[in-house]
Amino acid sequence: MKFSSKILEQAVVSLTTLPGIGKKTALRLALHLSQDHSKKAQQIAFALNQLATMIRKCSVCGNLSDEECCEICKSKHRQNNILCIVESSRDVMAIEETQQFNGKYHVLGGVISPLDGIGPEELNIQGLIQRIDNENIEEIIMAISPTIEGETTIYFISKLVKEKNIKISVIARGVSFGGDLEYTDELTLGRSIQSRLPYQVDN
Amino acid sequence: MKFSSKILEQAVVSLTTLPGIGKKTALRLALHLSQDHSKKAQQIAFALNQLATMIRKCSVCGNLSDEECCEICKSKHRQNNILCIVESSRDVMAIEETQQFNGKYHVLGGVISPLDGIGPEELNIQGLIQRIDNENIEEIIMAISPTIEGETTIYFISKLVKEKNIKISVIARGVSFGGDLEYTDELTLGRSIQSRLPYQVDN
Repeated sequence: MKFSSKILEQAVVSLTTLPGIGKKTALRLALHLSQDHSKKAQQIAFALNQLATMIRKCSVCGNLSDEECCEICKSKHRQNNILCIVESSRDVMAIEETQQFNGKYHVLGGVISPLDGIGPEELNIQGLIQRIDNENIEEIIMAISPTIEGETTIYFISKLVKEKNIKISVIARGVSFGGDLEYTDELTLGRSIQSRLPYQVDN
Repeated sequence: MKFSSKILEQAVVSLTTLPGIGKKTALRLALHLSQDHSKKAQQIAFALNQLATMIRKCSVCGNLSDEECCEICKSKHRQNNILCIVESSRDVMAIEETQQFNGKYHVLGGVISPLDGIGPEELNIQGLIQRIDNENIEEIIMAISPTIEGETTIYFISKLVKEKNIKISVIARGVSFGGDLEYTDELTLGRSIQSRLPYQVDN
């Protein structure tokens, strides 16, 4: 592509480094920002600079935070004895949206994936063990994606935690609400039959 | 959506102001940039700041440029007597890609669209008239989208230029190469029959 401006070209090149943004989209965005929207460009530049320099991981749980310790870890209205273990900050947001969990979180920062060179050392597992040893934790909930890597991670952590005499649970897997049995994959459907629950009829 | 970080929230809000970027995409981009990609975030921020402050419109043709006068207007290898009139810098790039035009450009900055409050005064039409008066221009090519607004703009400019004794042409409209007649809209197909060309057989 021939650019009439080096500055425009650099903006396009830098935007294409983003996931899911191709050359055409990057060009569209850069042209949008260069023509009559320079204030918007400056606002985004400022926000991204803040993101790059100011944001950090909570020293307790590993969630993204503006301060040393995140809002959730600081909160006095949350149960201290139950930990929800997740892969990323995105998952914390997803679970918070459900309003079904009032304990605290522990963000691993990924899952064990030898093919990508991610072993247990690369994850925030040591921090988890320390929290279990030092805090008064009674249950950990594994809210990790049911993939091969996710299952491996769950197994690894469970083995480490096994002798510490705490309850370990995994979030329920099965057919989605509103989902169609016909289109559910065999593995999910098979598991959902295996782990069927008693149906309670109100009197 | 509940954000664990105000900085993250601001980044998401600012990214959603971009065209075609919704809340979920903005969140994905912001999380990508906040976790382990802070250098990339800074690079993009720098590029966008440059875009906002350094880029300008060429004083001759109105194309985006790093300097007072753009590369194309400065070029000595291009014909000075033929002007291609386009809506935006994006169109200049598209035509340059084809390598079929070796004249100079004039970027209007839009088309006449009363519904959007864009009249002839909002466009770079005065500059065009001045160029026609002062430069030795023999032909103008209207490379403007064949929409109602585009046609209006072409008509308006043609009326202004009519008495200046220069050739006015419009880029050919018709069925796309590789296009299927069956799926071509009636208007395009009808016009392409009206403006049919003699077929030349080589000897």
